[in-house]
Amino acid sequence: MTSRRGTLIVVSAPSGAGKTTLCRDVRMRLGDLAYSVSYTTRPPRPGEVDGADFHFVTESAFKELREAGGFAEWAEVHGNLYGTHAGTIERALAEGRDIILDIDTQGARQLRARYREAVLIFIIAPSMAELEQRLRERRSDAEREIKRRMDRAREEIQLWRQYDYLIVNRDVKDAVEQLAAVIQAERCRTTRLSLALPDLEVRS
Amino acid sequence: MTSRRGTLIVVSAPSGAGKTTLCRDVRMRLGDLAYSVSYTTRPPRPGEVDGADFHFVTESAFKELREAGGFAEWAEVHGNLYGTHAGTIERALAEGRDIILDIDTQGARQLRARYREAVLIFIIAPSMAELEQRLRERRSDAEREIKRRMDRAREEIQLWRQYDYLIVNRDVKDAVEQLAAVIQAERCRTTRLSLALPDLEVRS
Repeated sequence: MTSRRGTLIVVSAPSGAGKTTLCRDVRMRLGDLAYSVSYTTRPPRPGEVDGADFHFVTESAFKELREAGGFAEWAEVHGNLYGTHAGTIERALAEGRDIILDIDTQGARQLRARYREAVLIFIIAPSMAELEQRLRERRSDAEREIKRRMDRAREEIQLWRQYDYLIVNRDVKDAVEQLAAVIQAERCRTTRLSLALPDLEVRS
Repeated sequence: MTSRRGTLIVVSAPSGAGKTTLCRDVRMRLGDLAYSVSYTTRPPRPGEVDGADFHFVTESAFKELREAGGFAEWAEVHGNLYGTHAGTIERALAEGRDIILDIDTQGARQLRARYREAVLIFIIAPSMAELEQRLRERRSDAEREIKRRMDRAREEIQLWRQYDYLIVNRDVKDAVEQLAAVIQAERCRTTRLSLALPDLEVRS
């Protein structure tokens, strides 16, 4: 099975749907998932650590890396730039490790175009009212920012059919279980195993 | 979500791969899976209970039900007839319940033709040597019967690419977890949810 190529797992969600927590928890649960820390030009929020939550970079450093072809995807969200380092993905897949990325809908579309076999998962809050409440509990955002995120969430939710899986985050524990189930199930898909098990017919 | 139609889950495996145990354990684990007890003309093995393990019927009773269109699939295996009652499947799907069937490769092909959206799962033992050992441990089979089952297993294993998922049953606990993961993941597939969540865009 060492010849198996890894699978790229892309998780998107409107802000406040809980995808950062779910991605962290599913990595702890499965233990063998690679992860890519995104690059961003937005300033750190209280408690965020450079190199762990994001690579926080200047706009000029971001654009330099982008021009050099260093990003597998990049996007502008709420006026800030975000990007995923291409080398991190390529290395994990080549080593046969599944890699999970926490990416917005624009980035997910770029990754699907570049990695046809990627698994795209969309996370939503159980309702718009619940989403708004979660954004308010975060407290770090001003009223105008909350309104902007809600408007964007309404737009993004309409894209759910472009994803392979939809997980409704009613309860974090259940949602982590569903996310883990999707990743485990994809590892058993015959379309992925065809390449890894060419010798199955002559097993003895 | 009550409008969601159930999913038909079809599990096949060469004899000795452990599918009967896995199907029973995954039903206990998930709790909400419907199940169809097959009809068969083969005699009960020691410990098997009529109506629980199989509906044991005479050949003439089987053929009468078959002519009446009562089977969603039927097959002849090792000289015995096996069939799945169509009404049991239809009722579960209409009620929005997922239903799991433990069916041979001939039956799986018929079910795929009849239910395009069915999920087909193939279970294999980790090796032919392991498979032979499990058949011998079963003890109820004569030497000639074991040889016949082994020959059939070699043929059947070549059909694995016709299935959606492949689970290698190295360890029962792990295999049950994989089987449960496949069923849980399929419940999150956007292609299945499109019908159940037509109102997602206007949620408020």
